[in-house]
Parts: sequence; structure tokens; C-alpha cells
Amino acid sequence: MKFYADCQARVAADLLSGTWPMVVIYALSYGPARPVELRRKIGGISPKVLTETLRRLEQHRVVERRRYAEAPPRVEYSLTSAGQDLLVPIRALGEWADRHAATVLEAQHSG
Amino acid sequence: MKFYADCQARVAADLLSGTWPMVVIYALSYGPARPVELRRKIGGISPKVLTETLRRLEQHRVVERRRYAEAPPRVEYSLTSAGQDLLVPIRALGEWADRHAATVLEAQHSG
Repeated sequence: MKFYADCQARVAADLLSGTWPMVVIYALSYGPARPVELRRKIGGISPKVLTETLRRLEQHRVVERRRYAEAPPRVEYSLTSAGQDLLVPIRALGEWADRHAATVLEAQHSG
Repeated sequence: MKFYADCQARVAADLLSGTWPMVVIYALSYGPARPVELRRKIGGISPKVLTETLRRLEQHRVVERRRYAEAPPRVEYSLTSAGQDLLVPIRALGEWADRHAATVLEAQHSG
């Protein structure tokens, strides 16, 4: 593993930055879910923002969308294997934040 | 650990997003270094961008700056313990990228 200017780890960090990607990936870690179930599980996310987040994750091949030809048609999202593997760095970021986020946030606000 | 809208892991992911933060933190994992040494180690980073990156990391308390009263004055940067701990998620992101970044980048460019 190398950490240079063209560092590929950046792809992962950029993908996870922002409010929702990690939350949505984590919500999908329990198994495939319909958008309405995800909204219920997550709380505080609008249908529009959830759709945008899912679309971006789908474009990055960490989430996949399945459409079932039922009446009414059912759509389910699930993690791909790349998405499953993202749970490892997400958990590591979460553990880091559990230990240090309070200090970091305090420093930001006092700076 | 919880992943909700106010998820603190976001603090870490946001801090690491962009080209340089992970590269600079990784370069400092070998021990304290002067800016000129960091530039040599990293390659391709301008003095201005390095200074800005270090300042941001310092504001987030993951890097600290020491000034030695020598002639000429010497300035050294090092990781704080929060910065050292960031190496865990950084390595996890790097390992994920080693396995999946090629697929993700390809998907982005073909999308």
C-alpha cells in the first residue's frame, strides 16, 4: 500500500465524506432494503436525498439496485461485495470518532 | 457505535477527504518532520498547499507544530495521539482501495 499524491485510498475517503454515505451503507449492512425501509431505519433523510445518495453509491458500484416485476413494482437496494468491504474502514472511522471526535469538534469551534 | 444522521464518523471521513490529508498524515507516520522534508517525501505538493493542509490538520488536533528557537528557527510537525490513531482507518481505506478502487474508478468514468 502506498500513500502518494495519486493515492487510491482517496477514492474511498471521498466516497464516504459528507453526511449520508456512511449512514446509508451502514443501514444496508443489515441486508437488502427498500427505500421506505431505509428511510425508517435512518431517520431524518428526505426521499430526494436518499435517492441521490443511493444513486451515487450505485454509480460507484458499492450498492446495487434490484427491481422486482411485481404490482406495484418493488425496488430493493443492497451492498455489493465492494460495499460490504467498506464496512471495515467505516467501522475504523467510527471507532476513531468515538475516541476523538469530541476533541476535534471542540478544537474546530474554538479555532 | 452508531451510524445516524449526526454520525461522528463523518468528522473523520470529512477530515480525510481530498487529495492531501491522508498523504500528509501517512508521511508523518515515520516521525516528526520539517516541511521541507515532508515535501521531499511526498512529492508533487506545493509549499502553499502543504502549509494549508498542515494548518487544517493542526486545527483538528491531529497534527502538532513545534517551533525550536534556533538560528534559523526550525519548525517541525508531528502526529498527535489522535493523529496516530487515524492511521488505523487510513490503512483500512487504503486496503479497501487496493482491492476495489480500480472497479470504482472505471464505473465512474463509464457512467
